[in-house]
Amino acid sequence: MKFHKILIANRGEIAVRIIRACRELGISTVAVYSEADKDALHVRLADEAYCIGPTLSKDSYLNITNIMSVATLTECDAVHPGYGFLAENADFAEICESCNITFIGPSADAINKMGDKSVAKQTMKSAGVPVIPGSDGLVEDLDQAVMIGRDIGYPLIIKATAGGGGKGIRIAEDEPALIKQITAAQQEAQKAFGNAGVYLEKFLTGMKHVEIQIMADNHGNAVHLGERDCSVQRRRQKLVEESPCPVLSQEVRSLMGEAAVRAAKAVNYSGAGTLEFLLGPDGQFYFMEMNTRIQVEHPVTEMVTGMDLIKEMISVAEGKPLSFSQEDIVINGSSIECRINAEDPDRNFMPAPGKIQFYLAPGGPGVRVDSAAYQGYSIPPFYDSMIAKLIVWAPTREEAIAKMKRALSEFAVEGIHTTIPFHLKLLEHPTFNKGDFDIKFLEENEI
Amino acid sequence: MKFHKILIANRGEIAVRIIRACRELGISTVAVYSEADKDALHVRLADEAYCIGPTLSKDSYLNITNIMSVATLTECDAVHPGYGFLAENADFAEICESCNITFIGPSADAINKMGDKSVAKQTMKSAGVPVIPGSDGLVEDLDQAVMIGRDIGYPLIIKATAGGGGKGIRIAEDEPALIKQITAAQQEAQKAFGNAGVYLEKFLTGMKHVEIQIMADNHGNAVHLGERDCSVQRRRQKLVEESPCPVLSQEVRSLMGEAAVRAAKAVNYSGAGTLEFLLGPDGQFYFMEMNTRIQVEHPVTEMVTGMDLIKEMISVAEGKPLSFSQEDIVINGSSIECRINAEDPDRNFMPAPGKIQFYLAPGGPGVRVDSAAYQGYSIPPFYDSMIAKLIVWAPTREEAIAKMKRALSEFAVEGIHTTIPFHLKLLEHPTFNKGDFDIKFLEENEI
Repeated sequence: MKFHKILIANRGEIAVRIIRACRELGISTVAVYSEADKDALHVRLADEAYCIGPTLSKDSYLNITNIMSVATLTECDAVHPGYGFLAENADFAEICESCNITFIGPSADAINKMGDKSVAKQTMKSAGVPVIPGSDGLVEDLDQAVMIGRDIGYPLIIKATAGGGGKGIRIAEDEPALIKQITAAQQEAQKAFGNAGVYLEKFLTGMKHVEIQIMADNHGNAVHLGERDCSVQRRRQKLVEESPCPVLSQEVRSLMGEAAVRAAKAVNYSGAGTLEFLLGPDGQFYFMEMNTRIQVEHPVTEMVTGMDLIKEMISVAEGKPLSFSQEDIVINGSSIECRINAEDPDRNFMPAPGKIQFYLAPGGPGVRVDSAAYQGYSIPPFYDSMIAKLIVWAPTREEAIAKMKRALSEFAVEGIHTTIPFHLKLLEHPTFNKGDFDIKFLEENEI
Repeated sequence: MKFHKILIANRGEIAVRIIRACRELGISTVAVYSEADKDALHVRLADEAYCIGPTLSKDSYLNITNIMSVATLTECDAVHPGYGFLAENADFAEICESCNITFIGPSADAINKMGDKSVAKQTMKSAGVPVIPGSDGLVEDLDQAVMIGRDIGYPLIIKATAGGGGKGIRIAEDEPALIKQITAAQQEAQKAFGNAGVYLEKFLTGMKHVEIQIMADNHGNAVHLGERDCSVQRRRQKLVEESPCPVLSQEVRSLMGEAAVRAAKAVNYSGAGTLEFLLGPDGQFYFMEMNTRIQVEHPVTEMVTGMDLIKEMISVAEGKPLSFSQEDIVINGSSIECRINAEDPDRNFMPAPGKIQFYLAPGGPGVRVDSAAYQGYSIPPFYDSMIAKLIVWAPTREEAIAKMKRALSEFAVEGIHTTIPFHLKLLEHPTFNKGDFDIKFLEENEI
């Protein structure tokens, strides 16, 4: 099968990224947009563009009925969901398939298996992927929770099984705290996610967020493409990502990669996916969750492997076998990505939408910009505040940091506040330069 | 030695390119500019900037006195000349050295040896580099010219020894034409270059322009970094360059590379240089000239080798040995560069300076933009019409062409005419796609 036309069910830089891949593959593109996005770059760049509803995401970018109407009427072969919005919505994947439109991503079954964090953990454990010690599945009652606490020790973390992205999480420092919080956590989870299920995990310290990119096809092949260190986080939101991880040994890298491939095979995975792990200072790693979609930070993997993950997703969805084998994946040099957000770092990263009065992205060797911004564009306040991803590549991490500083210093975005000054300061921090920062780095350090 | 401050004796994208390299290396930069260039990007990006004279190049960018004054007063350790202007001016190189300011390039002696085309040819012949059959040195008189014509056959090309870049060249189809043209050519050369010397060469057909990038240090090391196919030319001006050459065999590549290294060693070369060859359909190649500077099209070599040639030039000028050996140079994938000129392709490529009303460069994976343009910038009519170099990389040439088409199609430069539409048409041409075009391709084909 060869796709002729793909609908991109997303906006912003990822919609532009997918349009670019389609154009290079000779595939026509259909953009969809909300009423607030009529001047958006993805609308300008796509071959066709259709408004799918009012400003609010639930009325537009989450409006499955309208999106499927456009896909059907424009005779699309496939839908690429990008990340966020409908990307991990198993119902949407199923509806696409029932309309004979290929969902560019894994099966609804694989999405479901990984979407429920507690089920995912069991699946991974069975596949021999190390998981964080904790309750095997949901906590049944208070007595069981206390028993688990005595067994694995404190502090413990209480997580809502339907949560994610840092939501639905509590820490219990000791047994009284656990007893006090467990019922509250269940009630909160019921309220927030419509699912009261919670589970317990050992609360680990000094951990890095290290994730493995995998790519799998519908013929039983699965390959890992190295790791990304995403430990620079603010309120569990990633701000800077890099590949390779500056402190990972080749031995642990291989173990993590092999575990990620086992995980993918355990759920008959297809397409691009990411296994997120916590990596301890001792080299021990633990499965956190699997993201069953392309991720924001995928470019750093592309820069060090030379592979195009979006093109590969499309090719796999067309039914082709992977274009590369494990032996073809060689990690070359060092790549860093800074997420440039329309936020004011001096005012607690408050979103700062508005009109871009002057815009000039950096260029030159080893610099990649994935963005939907342009001079004269008004950033709407309704969606994600990320306006550009600045990605660099250099032979060594030290050179990549120098290049990122150079690129940030010439990145001109006038008229709005951005996180560029924050990134410039971060890149000067000795701990960042040393590379051994953990996920608490930004919490514990003034940047 | 480590440079602390470098003066960039140039403008436009190459000045920006050098500033970027310096910034990544932690070296301060001094820009110089003409009165017409006060709003130029290199002026904005450099750490310091000084006006060195009126609009005309001879009063500013060729004004050695003013440039050296700025370099001395700002305490620069070195001067990078870029390409054009003073880049191949041996006097300038000597004056720099006499002021204890390092000229980032080869010695004045090497520049001189390669600047006189007839001397250069002799030097190359002695070094065992194949040269085009012709007169050994300058033509002495008409009788000798006729003898040479009978020896090597027609057509012959008459070249002024002080010419270059397509200037001072005549073709003689037979003996009567030679007799008729030789005196006229000498008179013309005397008038144009102040040097009446002309030499004869066999006029070859079906030739490609293939050049070898070399890099040498002051410790006797010289390395070649693969070739660039620059056969897409209009009036001997390169428009599109790529690496590798789509039709070059590994065997001939090695032979050319080795010849280029011999050539560099023959003149004790140091820094970045390019050996330009004509390559015949039979795989025979002939030395044309050596450019003793960085070239416009150097990025395609950087893309396929992962090396930074400007940084390496600076490092070599600091006295360091080359950071790589011949074995480290691996050609990976395919890279193409399109020169985007402010010219109107529909009006015989007439220069089209003016104000850029909207500017948005392409981005995404495998796309590099080297440019000094920005939205609101008025391109002055006094200098080169090139406003951007668009460079792409992909695993294969076919994918690189697809990527270039995608990148060109989204490159927005409004308010002026550019060569973007020309490039889009060129990339559709079957001969370009096949890759076996020669230097007459654009002359003989309607694009």
